[in-house]
Amino acid sequence: MSPRSQNRRKFLLLAVVAAIVGLVIGLLIGRFGIRSDNDDYKITGISETFVQDADPYISAEIMDNINSENIRQYLRELTEHPHLAGTDADYKQAKDLQEFWRSVGLDETFITPYDVLLSYPETKDESKMNRIFVYDSAGQVVWKSALYEPILDPSENKSNVVPPFNAYSASGDVSSTDLVYVNYGRVEDFRWLAQNTDINITGKIVLARYGKNFRGDKAYQAEILGAKGIILYSDPEDYANNGEATQVYPHGWFLPESGTQRGTIFRGYIGDPLTPGYPATETAYRLKGNGTNSVVLPKIPCHPIGYGAAKILLSYMSGDQVPASWRGGLNITYRFGGPLKQSGWKIRMRISTKNTRKKMHNVFGVIRGSIEPDRYVLLGNHLDAWVFGAIDPSSGTAVMKEVSRVMGNLVQQKKWRPRRTIIFCGWGAEEFKLIGSTEWVEQYIKNLGSRSVAYLNLDIASEGNYSMRLRATPLMRSVTYAAAKKVPNPEETDTRFKTVYDKWMYAFPNADKSRPRDFRLGLLSDYASFIQRAGIPVADFRYTYNRNELKLPSYPLYHSKYETFKAVDEFMDRGFKCHRASGQVWAEVARNLADSLIIPFQVEDYAKTLKDGVDNLENEFGLLMKKNGIELELLYKAISVFAADAADFQERAKHVDKKNPFAIRSLNDQLTLMERAFIDPEGLPGRPLARNIVFADSSTNAYADAIFPGLIDGMFEIEGSADEERRWEIVKKHFSVVIHTIDSAASTLRDVSAFMPL
Amino acid sequence: MSPRSQNRRKFLLLAVVAAIVGLVIGLLIGRFGIRSDNDDYKITGISETFVQDADPYISAEIMDNINSENIRQYLRELTEHPHLAGTDADYKQAKDLQEFWRSVGLDETFITPYDVLLSYPETKDESKMNRIFVYDSAGQVVWKSALYEPILDPSENKSNVVPPFNAYSASGDVSSTDLVYVNYGRVEDFRWLAQNTDINITGKIVLARYGKNFRGDKAYQAEILGAKGIILYSDPEDYANNGEATQVYPHGWFLPESGTQRGTIFRGYIGDPLTPGYPATETAYRLKGNGTNSVVLPKIPCHPIGYGAAKILLSYMSGDQVPASWRGGLNITYRFGGPLKQSGWKIRMRISTKNTRKKMHNVFGVIRGSIEPDRYVLLGNHLDAWVFGAIDPSSGTAVMKEVSRVMGNLVQQKKWRPRRTIIFCGWGAEEFKLIGSTEWVEQYIKNLGSRSVAYLNLDIASEGNYSMRLRATPLMRSVTYAAAKKVPNPEETDTRFKTVYDKWMYAFPNADKSRPRDFRLGLLSDYASFIQRAGIPVADFRYTYNRNELKLPSYPLYHSKYETFKAVDEFMDRGFKCHRASGQVWAEVARNLADSLIIPFQVEDYAKTLKDGVDNLENEFGLLMKKNGIELELLYKAISVFAADAADFQERAKHVDKKNPFAIRSLNDQLTLMERAFIDPEGLPGRPLARNIVFADSSTNAYADAIFPGLIDGMFEIEGSADEERRWEIVKKHFSVVIHTIDSAASTLRDVSAFMPL
Repeated sequence: MSPRSQNRRKFLLLAVVAAIVGLVIGLLIGRFGIRSDNDDYKITGISETFVQDADPYISAEIMDNINSENIRQYLRELTEHPHLAGTDADYKQAKDLQEFWRSVGLDETFITPYDVLLSYPETKDESKMNRIFVYDSAGQVVWKSALYEPILDPSENKSNVVPPFNAYSASGDVSSTDLVYVNYGRVEDFRWLAQNTDINITGKIVLARYGKNFRGDKAYQAEILGAKGIILYSDPEDYANNGEATQVYPHGWFLPESGTQRGTIFRGYIGDPLTPGYPATETAYRLKGNGTNSVVLPKIPCHPIGYGAAKILLSYMSGDQVPASWRGGLNITYRFGGPLKQSGWKIRMRISTKNTRKKMHNVFGVIRGSIEPDRYVLLGNHLDAWVFGAIDPSSGTAVMKEVSRVMGNLVQQKKWRPRRTIIFCGWGAEEFKLIGSTEWVEQYIKNLGSRSVAYLNLDIASEGNYSMRLRATPLMRSVTYAAAKKVPNPEETDTRFKTVYDKWMYAFPNADKSRPRDFRLGLLSDYASFIQRAGIPVADFRYTYNRNELKLPSYPLYHSKYETFKAVDEFMDRGFKCHRASGQVWAEVARNLADSLIIPFQVEDYAKTLKDGVDNLENEFGLLMKKNGIELELLYKAISVFAADAADFQERAKHVDKKNPFAIRSLNDQLTLMERAFIDPEGLPGRPLARNIVFADSSTNAYADAIFPGLIDGMFEIEGSADEERRWEIVKKHFSVVIHTIDSAASTLRDVSAFMPL
Repeated sequence: MSPRSQNRRKFLLLAVVAAIVGLVIGLLIGRFGIRSDNDDYKITGISETFVQDADPYISAEIMDNINSENIRQYLRELTEHPHLAGTDADYKQAKDLQEFWRSVGLDETFITPYDVLLSYPETKDESKMNRIFVYDSAGQVVWKSALYEPILDPSENKSNVVPPFNAYSASGDVSSTDLVYVNYGRVEDFRWLAQNTDINITGKIVLARYGKNFRGDKAYQAEILGAKGIILYSDPEDYANNGEATQVYPHGWFLPESGTQRGTIFRGYIGDPLTPGYPATETAYRLKGNGTNSVVLPKIPCHPIGYGAAKILLSYMSGDQVPASWRGGLNITYRFGGPLKQSGWKIRMRISTKNTRKKMHNVFGVIRGSIEPDRYVLLGNHLDAWVFGAIDPSSGTAVMKEVSRVMGNLVQQKKWRPRRTIIFCGWGAEEFKLIGSTEWVEQYIKNLGSRSVAYLNLDIASEGNYSMRLRATPLMRSVTYAAAKKVPNPEETDTRFKTVYDKWMYAFPNADKSRPRDFRLGLLSDYASFIQRAGIPVADFRYTYNRNELKLPSYPLYHSKYETFKAVDEFMDRGFKCHRASGQVWAEVARNLADSLIIPFQVEDYAKTLKDGVDNLENEFGLLMKKNGIELELLYKAISVFAADAADFQERAKHVDKKNPFAIRSLNDQLTLMERAFIDPEGLPGRPLARNIVFADSSTNAYADAIFPGLIDGMFEIEGSADEERRWEIVKKHFSVVIHTIDSAASTLRDVSAFMPL
């Protein structure tokens, strides 16, 4: 070998060695030496996937795929037959939905049954069926109510239509020579009657119109004032736009004279009447009819009728004419009543409705979260209907099927998997008092309370085609507005409004026109136990009618047999565009909550709502409270501390280190758990299961939109109370609990390593 | 340039280029090409620091640095003066501790005050001071109790020593011709007396010995049975090893005849008597003495004396001799009493103890967690003492100072920062009924409930030098055993036992000798509100005396003035080695919980404890329950479901992906939140603030070690109850609540994305 080639080999060797050394150094530097943009962190094997924000492309993909015609088809199928809670048809619907969810690609589905107390009328023996009779002095039947609502459209001609009844009514056969009209049957109506007339309802039958308050409260007031029975009816002023034949079903969406509103009158809190506070499982303790742990159910018969029947009853009545605010829309003179006009006549209620233990079923479908499977975004709708339920609830069920189909398919196609777990919930026995959802929350409150991001309810997707409306806790506002701004206005005829949000702002602006106004939460659908018992942020979405023009207690066909597919398809949402828009908003809110790295809640929105609540209190009761030693300033102070903490929190949130998975998680925990602080285990005074200090429903109608129900109710009860001193003590204690609760909520928003000092 | 050097340059260039190319390739591969061992993750800028397990080196560093002599010096300083709750000396101690924590490097310190109801005896006007008198038939004083315990060692010669008293005793001046001995004053003692003698205590003064149950229950039983007053004393059988002079203080650690146990007799739940369930803040509602919301305080005078005084009283007594189990250790015949032996004699209790609103203070010191600052490991000890408190609580305070010094210094030196936040808590007014800790938990329960890993209590660090003992929830067992195995046995004289654990296993093995036995939790120190109200895992550490040989209700000098530095330094823990060992175990448990990537809780240990609890129930009450329709099998079944879920969970935990920060966090959330499921907002039957279904304290002494207190108490009350049917309903309801609670706990352990189906 020549020296030269030797040299060359030496150099080649050198080059190779240099290359290898370079490579190794490079490898080492590359592997261990290059620091991330945040120099505090060593780069090794932890994936950035964990802290990536969602791909916004999927938002449009989901919304665009939601199809009106699918919703229409689903609704047609769902409303083919009655599906009353606790019946085979209802169970079949749960099983069908489970099967549907399997087929569209949800990861997991299951059914949870509960054994609960439901209530049904007699349907077999006509001689026992619920009926109202009027007899003349010879004991002959002058008039009797219909057993069923007549068939007005052939599509209603189905078996298993339950006759009109009020669930949990006492059974009984009661008669009276007197019939008294009590307007809406509110506390204030009975009080007015007592103060302005000499009519005593003790031992009599009363007639009240539906609307303004919960029907169970009408029956309860009648009961405690000694009435023997109560008849409820839908006045055409409230439900039929005063009853023009061309506008009522089957020609329009208003209630016909035979249409009758069913509905529960259970006035205990929410859930199965036999197992308050606990799930109605196999091993549950059930209240007995007597003794210490007795169940509280209505004690007098209660029965609903249509305005055709009511007009006849009103025509039999005697007494003075009622004042204008008591008059309804029937072409007849409304009188207070008393003894029936014809001497010797009698009115009789024959009610054989019976309470009975039944199995009911919830059904669930799960899309597992990719990164945070232990954080849940829940979407729910109830499955049970009084009859066909084309609006309540199947409009929502149809939309839920479509939203779950779209999301499930994306998961199936591996185009998408949400960061957090999405759970679709099909509830049973909502109509009897939110039973399915409440039992489930009672059973799993520990898991739900610590893991849920939000519960998003869609009971009725569309009860009209005018605008979106929202019932929600303040946290849910901005995320809902953001969604509504993405969804095109479904009205094709009106081009003034580009988006659902634009129309909404026009339709229902809040007082200062800065945003859409809030509708009260109350106990109106399955979100109730989530917010009232567990303190989970909730929202209830719906497309509604023009509430500015139509002063209706609800959409007119509500809970009647005439809630049919035909009514929706032909009169209420032709083309199902509003159904679709509801679904798009609902789905986009869910996606945003399930996918975003930082959960899009605005805690500052809460401060404003709390402040408004105290302003209301001050306006209504400020002087009275002050005179009795309650300083509202203390509550204002607590709220301003909360507001400052909320503002600080939002500011800190902007600077969270997005490369730090634990900082992300911690921030999100604060965002989702703040609302829990408004839950107090002792509940409101005298209502231990009403545990939400801010949003539990006030039991007075006058202040139904107000928050702080414990204080509102307290002040309301103090007025004219016999035991005023004792009531003031209760109010004073509750006032301090409210302040404590707000302080507690504020503390959850502070720097997590320094929350303690105020 | 020669071709050779040209060549050389060429090759050098080649080598450099090769090296550079190699370097670049290496860099690229190193930076982007090397995948983590989990190929699902993209490697980019997220740090592995987040999922690194703790450096075990720090464990020894902390334990080794804990210094006995420091503890001794701290204790000497802390016990220099009395520091009764609500006094200036007590507040000074809180401020001093805050200053100390600042000085040793804790990140943050603060004091939280509460305005609470405390209770003090008269100390200024001797003519009003608490005293017991015996008068002869001429009305002359035959005997009167001492106002103070005499000074037995010069170190006790300090101002502000509070005279012996029972906090919250009613004030009053009551006399009786009768004095009745009621043994320990338990329900069963009063019952025995009623069944076996014809003595009626109504209108009389009773004498009961300390021990076996809570002194508040003695006073309450006397009150409800109609006694006028109750005198409590420490019998030498229970507190003085029968009183040999060479063994009693100031010559030994046993109670001298003048030694008198102070103590609260407040029998409401825990915390400030005026604000049950809510924090005693400025805006708190406070119960009134009358009306609906009235505070429940003792209604008869109660006063403690030493056994010197008791012997005199016993010598004045008449009646039959008591049975053997009622006899104490005084060299005198114990009689049931009745009218005093000498006709016309009278006994009088003059009690001027008054309840008064006072400010009390908690003090906190925080070491912020590095990765998970929103997860808290709390270490606490109370600061207030009845007098010098050298054992209760200052032995614990001295150790807390030392542990915080060691940890603070490591943080200051940047040698260590725990993964999670560590919070040292110095509680106020523990002696009055765990007031400081309870008010704080009440105020911040939402944050504490969602963020706490554990609360670790050290009230008394050492009440003897024999062995470690533990009161804890099952979750805390294995982590405490692991710590105790690391700490050398502090006894130098006994070489059989290498570690604290070895001695512990020898001293107090459980039934099957598989591990140390559990001591019951109860409401004995500041951990109570954490476990009873919030469901936070707790442990209470202590070095104790030889409980196998000495059957004492507590260490003998408990709550007397003679709890001095001298007693500890000379008799109880010479060299402070047991104090140090307590501190080492406590610190190591805290470090492990604060630092470990996966929180070292063993959920399977819970299943065993639950099973043992039902076995107890079955043994004691199984037949009775079965006969009345309660199927314990249902409870066994629930527990076996829980056990299976716990086993599955532990198995899944082994395979958690340690590169996934969210999986780690989720797993830890399950580990720390499971215990919360045992909290029920409705509480035990009749005890709404006793909310822990498993561990709330049973109010019967006979089953003090048992769990499921609601059931135990229920069965106990049913025996011989007048209203048996009503009680059975209550028990049956609670039985179903217990099952629901265990089901609920089991559900928290399931796969987080599939928890719902059972």
